Amino acid sequence: MTGPAAAGLFITLEGGDGCGKTTQSELLTDWLRQSGRTVLRTREPGGTDVGGAIREIVLHHRGEIAPRAEALLYAADRAQHIATAVRPALARGEVVIQDRYLDSSVAYQGAGRVLDATPVRNLSLWAAEGLLPALTVLLDLDETVARGRLDAENKPFDRLEAEKSDFHRRVRAAFLALADAEPERFLVVDAGRPVAEIAAVIRDRVAALL
Amino acid sequence: MTGPAAAGLFITLEGGDGCGKTTQSELLTDWLRQSGRTVLRTREPGGTDVGGAIREIVLHHRGEIAPRAEALLYAADRAQHIATAVRPALARGEVVIQDRYLDSSVAYQGAGRVLDATPVRNLSLWAAEGLLPALTVLLDLDETVARGRLDAENKPFDRLEAEKSDFHRRVRAAFLALADAEPERFLVVDAGRPVAEIAAVIRDRVAALL
Repeated sequence: MTGPAAAGLFITLEGGDGCGKTTQSELLTDWLRQSGRTVLRTREPGGTDVGGAIREIVLHHRGEIAPRAEALLYAADRAQHIATAVRPALARGEVVIQDRYLDSSVAYQGAGRVLDATPVRNLSLWAAEGLLPALTVLLDLDETVARGRLDAENKPFDRLEAEKSDFHRRVRAAFLALADAEPERFLVVDAGRPVAEIAAVIRDRVAALL
Repeated sequence: MTGPAAAGLFITLEGGDGCGKTTQSELLTDWLRQSGRTVLRTREPGGTDVGGAIREIVLHHRGEIAPRAEALLYAADRAQHIATAVRPALARGEVVIQDRYLDSSVAYQGAGRVLDATPVRNLSLWAAEGLLPALTVLLDLDETVARGRLDAENKPFDRLEAEKSDFHRRVRAAFLALADAEPERFLVVDAGRPVAEIAAVIRDRVAALL
């Protein structure tokens, strides 16, 4: 099976940390369940027991982990999660709402400048046997909002914070480039807007797909 | 760095279980050390501590592991092993003698008929940043010898043994096809010959490379 699964509906939420993915995924799940849909709400990495063991290696290993080894471990987690959790749910006709998927891998790896985006994307697609979401919601957090939150702390940037800021700018640019390349799959929402407004925009798009 | 490393010498031993890889790798290591060479004798999977943790997942997980997840875990082990053990040794000018490498992945995955050989090979090459051995010794065990050993047990084949026999035939054919495709990298030796004779053939070829 490749491409969007025929039976269920696969929706992913993407965006930087703190953009509101968890809140929006909860609101969407509640609305769908109230509409009588069965929903699997899930996340990567770590959505399976094998994934948990992999996460343990990636997060708690004391020595060096080679960048490609880390990318392959995340891809293994993805392969296990898609094959044993997501595809079965889609085959049962359920809606799957997932925090982070291959776009996160591409955006973060690309922004980290260690690995090229193309092999990382191909690795993910091979791991998932080509499964792409029917809809990917990108919660795009405006640069000035992010900066404003940091400035509110009222202290000058240190080198690490400046680097972090640059990293997050690159992640954001990478996400927006991915959305540009696949406009029919992506819904880009300004994550600086009120929570209820964002939820309504997402609901409208999901309703059109059901 | 791609292709054979400039400084050291990377040698792999391949072949089915029981073909004598361990014995020949020991004999070759002893000879090289007596000639004053520094040798790293290693194996996959599991040559690093991250590799040990990965091996633990693959071998001792109680539930289903998706075929692609397993292939990606082995590739992660390879990435870690090559980046943190093999490449540093080669950079120091050492000889690395390794039991099993990407040819085993291709031969076993191909023979298992679950995954295609080409993506498995590409995955391994990406994991290892393109590192290929200068020499791969294929210890090819003749069909009649293997059969003779089983017949010596003097009982009829059950279904599982017949399947196993077919599986090993496919693995052997896959190894020989790989050797055919890269004659300059492979040295194919009849593993049914006396141990000392095989060791001498391997030594001659390695001496020519040093």
